[in-house]
Amino acid sequence: MAKVAIVMGSTSDWPTMQNAALMLKQFGVEFEAQVVSAHRTPNLLVEFAETAEEKGFCAIIAGAGGAAHLPGMIAAHTHLPVFGCPVKSKALNGLDSLLSIVQMPKGVAVGTLAIGEAGAANAGLLAAQVVALQDADVRDAVIAFRKAQTDTVLASGKLEL
Amino acid sequence: MAKVAIVMGSTSDWPTMQNAALMLKQFGVEFEAQVVSAHRTPNLLVEFAETAEEKGFCAIIAGAGGAAHLPGMIAAHTHLPVFGCPVKSKALNGLDSLLSIVQMPKGVAVGTLAIGEAGAANAGLLAAQVVALQDADVRDAVIAFRKAQTDTVLASGKLEL
Amino acid sequence: MAKVAIVMGSTSDWPTMQNAALMLKQFGVEFEAQVVSAHRTPNLLVEFAETAEEKGFCAIIAGAGGAAHLPGMIAAHTHLPVFGCPVKSKALNGLDSLLSIVQMPKGVAVGTLAIGEAGAANAGLLAAQVVALQDADVRDAVIAFRKAQTDTVLASGKLEL
Amino acid sequence: MAKVAIVMGSTSDWPTMQNAALMLKQFGVEFEAQVVSAHRTPNLLVEFAETAEEKGFCAIIAGAGGAAHLPGMIAAHTHLPVFGCPVKSKALNGLDSLLSIVQMPKGVAVGTLAIGEAGAANAGLLAAQVVALQDADVRDAVIAFRKAQTDTVLASGKLEL
Amino acid sequence: MAKVAIVMGSTSDWPTMQNAALMLKQFGVEFEAQVVSAHRTPNLLVEFAETAEEKGFCAIIAGAGGAAHLPGMIAAHTHLPVFGCPVKSKALNGLDSLLSIVQMPKGVAVGTLAIGEAGAANAGLLAAQVVALQDADVRDAVIAFRKAQTDTVLASGKLEL
Amino acid sequence: MAKVAIVMGSTSDWPTMQNAALMLKQFGVEFEAQVVSAHRTPNLLVEFAETAEEKGFCAIIAGAGGAAHLPGMIAAHTHLPVFGCPVKSKALNGLDSLLSIVQMPKGVAVGTLAIGEAGAANAGLLAAQVVALQDADVRDAVIAFRKAQTDTVLASGKLEL
Amino acid sequence: MAKVAIVMGSTSDWPTMQNAALMLKQFGVEFEAQVVSAHRTPNLLVEFAETAEEKGFCAIIAGAGGAAHLPGMIAAHTHLPVFGCPVKSKALNGLDSLLSIVQMPKGVAVGTLAIGEAGAANAGLLAAQVVALQDADVRDAVIAFRKAQTDTVLASGKLEL
Amino acid sequence: MAKVAIVMGSTSDWPTMQNAALMLKQFGVEFEAQVVSAHRTPNLLVEFAETAEEKGFCAIIAGAGGAAHLPGMIAAHTHLPVFGCPVKSKALNGLDSLLSIVQMPKGVAVGTLAIGEAGAANAGLLAAQVVALQDADVRDAVIAFRKAQTDTVLASGKLEL
Repeated sequence: MAKVAIVMGSTSDWPTMQNAALMLKQFGVEFEAQVVSAHRTPNLLVEFAETAEEKGFCAIIAGAGGAAHLPGMIAAHTHLPVFGCPVKSKALNGLDSLLSIVQMPKGVAVGTLAIGEAGAANAGLLAAQVVALQDADVRDAVIAFRKAQTDTVLASGKLEL
Repeated sequence: MAKVAIVMGSTSDWPTMQNAALMLKQFGVEFEAQVVSAHRTPNLLVEFAETAEEKGFCAIIAGAGGAAHLPGMIAAHTHLPVFGCPVKSKALNGLDSLLSIVQMPKGVAVGTLAIGEAGAANAGLLAAQVVALQDADVRDAVIAFRKAQTDTVLASGKLEL
Repeated sequence: MAKVAIVMGSTSDWPTMQNAALMLKQFGVEFEAQVVSAHRTPNLLVEFAETAEEKGFCAIIAGAGGAAHLPGMIAAHTHLPVFGCPVKSKALNGLDSLLSIVQMPKGVAVGTLAIGEAGAANAGLLAAQVVALQDADVRDAVIAFRKAQTDTVLASGKLEL
Repeated sequence: MAKVAIVMGSTSDWPTMQNAALMLKQFGVEFEAQVVSAHRTPNLLVEFAETAEEKGFCAIIAGAGGAAHLPGMIAAHTHLPVFGCPVKSKALNGLDSLLSIVQMPKGVAVGTLAIGEAGAANAGLLAAQVVALQDADVRDAVIAFRKAQTDTVLASGKLEL
Repeated sequence: MAKVAIVMGSTSDWPTMQNAALMLKQFGVEFEAQVVSAHRTPNLLVEFAETAEEKGFCAIIAGAGGAAHLPGMIAAHTHLPVFGCPVKSKALNGLDSLLSIVQMPKGVAVGTLAIGEAGAANAGLLAAQVVALQDADVRDAVIAFRKAQTDTVLASGKLEL
Repeated sequence: MAKVAIVMGSTSDWPTMQNAALMLKQFGVEFEAQVVSAHRTPNLLVEFAETAEEKGFCAIIAGAGGAAHLPGMIAAHTHLPVFGCPVKSKALNGLDSLLSIVQMPKGVAVGTLAIGEAGAANAGLLAAQVVALQDADVRDAVIAFRKAQTDTVLASGKLEL
Repeated sequence: MAKVAIVMGSTSDWPTMQNAALMLKQFGVEFEAQVVSAHRTPNLLVEFAETAEEKGFCAIIAGAGGAAHLPGMIAAHTHLPVFGCPVKSKALNGLDSLLSIVQMPKGVAVGTLAIGEAGAANAGLLAAQVVALQDADVRDAVIAFRKAQTDTVLASGKLEL
Repeated sequence: MAKVAIVMGSTSDWPTMQNAALMLKQFGVEFEAQVVSAHRTPNLLVEFAETAEEKGFCAIIAGAGGAAHLPGMIAAHTHLPVFGCPVKSKALNGLDSLLSIVQMPKGVAVGTLAIGEAGAANAGLLAAQVVALQDADVRDAVIAFRKAQTDTVLASGKLEL
């Protein structure tokens, strides 16, 4: 079965990025998570991205903050779909992370999710939706998850002061 | 073979969004493009999104500008992967489009590309990368495209004043 | 008597949105408040908006955060006046919510209030001002509220170090 | 029948604000448009806003650019519903206008529309939606307008390269 | 001797605006501080601004937050110099306050200071610098203050780890 | 009689800054305008600012764009009132100029006007308002100017489609 | 003698980046300019950066726009000083380029210049200032350039209406 | 051996700027740190910058917040390389500091680092990289530091939920 890779620039991104892992786990999608720093381990980045397909990954989730180069550089070294997660940064709250990830030039694509934990969770969901195209169990799990969250909202009644 | 849908909020978005179509065409990925306005044809949106899978689409590219609700609302009605394209807006140059598309809450995901034409082209590329997971011809075409654009840059020599 | 609906994307928006309810209550305007999520319960949204008039609502207050699609999508399914409340978001402090709500395209309108609690309260006030056009008691209550808040300021004397 | 007032800070705002007038005219809603400058004719502003109700206006549309104080100050002097239109400004493209209009404090409300022409048109639409609560002809006209713009989109077929 | 007026939109602005008062007091410039709300007491605003000169004020310091209309509206009703202080706002940290105050149209001027306490203090300093043009004691006090703050910095030695 | 100095970072700022000169001329306030570049002629800046009072200037208007240090550095070398004009910049439309000028730390003040031509004109107006505190002719001229611009607006009638 | 490398993401960046070349040429500093795309030629980037020192370069100027990863990725592969130039982008005017370049994490540094042509020229100047530390001729040329631009400003006389 | 100067606008900047000092110390690069305020000690600034070269400094690191004029004004008075550090500001989180430092006009250059502590550390690193061009020990130390931080990341294994 297809695996999804989760990479991030620093262990300090894990509290954010584990939301992607939790989402994938919920759908029964196999994943591996590790730190790959674009700036501190650039050669690992090349090696990781160029061998991702042969290692059995079908999609890569990459999260980083500030001048967030990891998702785009991963995408530069692979033809697998890459989903980027802007981690909230100290000074600019992730606006820098978002623009650094999403504003890719024509020819190398990163599908970018929201800043922070919600975006990381949704990267896991989106990757699962890609896996679901080939895997009926994952498709069923995604549909069930979506139905359950709809039901949760529907079950809430009127709000009172 | 899997098809990709391209929807946009207005015919005025077509000059931007046709870059997605051109990219898909280049890879031999079948697509259909049409206007689906979240605000002016909300019931068409529901019908379109809820029947997209059975019509044979495997991914949906949605472009819109300003308060760009189309990609997120499409995603709310399907479990297919949705890729969002922020169209450049008149007053705020697409920053409003970008934030309206990318900042989705946990549980419904949109993989967002860059503002404007480059982003639309990359939505086509990213959708093709998803199709390539199941289609060796598309995979080869994507790899060839990527190699060709690398070669074009490599062929440029030194720049002189 | 005309009722006002208050909808919001999540129960976590209630601490903000109850300010609209409190304002309406103060003016003796009947209201109902509930969660309607554009992304998690899109079909409820359609049903809610399309039946709002026949249920006796004369205006709808809708609050959401981040990629805030609820107010605009409610407006897409009704001809009742819709007032939108940008809820403060985690990363971008509600700037994303504001732009997602206010930057509607020509043809579907949302009257947007300020980010956060003050805006929610003012949505209640503005809805009451609309009700007041047909209801002398509400008109008197709005005028009395405005006079009272003026008097409160006038009663404050000189400020001393 | 109820009339709607359209005021703006300068004759240079008329190309934007006439979109509100055109929308109202389309629905058969009577309107009067004039320049009322918060900064250059502050006493006219007071007189205008305080007598608007007795002159038969049921809503006021106010447009201004830059440090756009007109809508909020009109609202400070009346209990009629006020809808604000941020006119696109030279340096900051209307972001200053938008924030100056929408970020009102608790207790005085302005329902704010989008920056520029689309927002002005929608102010006319929203005012008509308010009038429609008491006027079946306007209600029918709004519903017909909304249906017509839906039909226009539905009539557009597939887009081809 | 000339007095300086300090007005603000709410008592909640006093912790910020008292820095203007403290600065004026330090220079021996007489001042009066009070709440004048553009939105809640618009008629007081008119009365205050139109009588400020005859009451002996030579300059007016006005502070407000959010859609901060007070400084500009004060300036609209007087020919005295007006200095505006953007108070830090909840959601947008005073960026809305700043743009609402500084982006005045040609013909009515507000000299705007920095967001928050430093700006309020500097409004007091700038008003004192205006008073100093006619009052040698204040001029001497301003020069002494400036020299003292220079000396404080000069007295700091090398910084060590 | 008191003179006002107008300085700017580059001759390319003159089309903007001449609006300050035109305003002063209209009020009969004497002025001198010259280029003083904070970055290219820093020693001239020191000499200019430190001798401005003895040369008979009572206020200094300083305009600059981008990393606009001129107004703040002039203020650092004089106790005369300094009014800063953010010139519209190429990439960021003057938002950089505005923040560089207005966000001064406590202890050195710059009264900042709007970005671009309107702000430069208002710097001339504000300087004249300061001169008017000591000069009845200038006071009369300012009042007449303000009345004339009010009358111009009042003379505009209803706007028709 | 030490050479400076100028790299950029695309030939479309050359009109901006040639300003760096012109500045270096003016100081007699040898340079080589070429296209190295982080996203389209990532392996060239690695090879270029890792061999830059042995090829005789003492500093690298890197310019890119949008999600501008080139300067930071060059810095990740070399210990030579890297100076980054944010090229003005289509939608966001280079704000995305600036944040993508300047917001580097601790441990890998890029000295960033202004958006656009001025910044590119200054990258050339700053690189020359680094070369000047070891090369008296370049030092003299930099000092002469700085003196000449000072003299140009000083030669401009009073500005007249 | 060449020394690096670290200057900052206020002792309150030292917690940020000491990160530059720590980095230099780690590489064995001599440094001196002191407060030089552009606005409160402008003459010290001139004296400091104009004598920096003769005192043996080869580069200057300057940090400031808000309307951050220190780095640019230092650069205006010296031909040594200047590296600017935007200190995080209270209201705008350092965006004002960043734009005030980086957007220098053509002809006077500041190599700007990231907002806050990471940027200050990187200013120390970049200055060391400049020193390393002439000092083999520093070069070795920089390379060792870079290798160590790479090894730290490489040593982190897979991340587990």
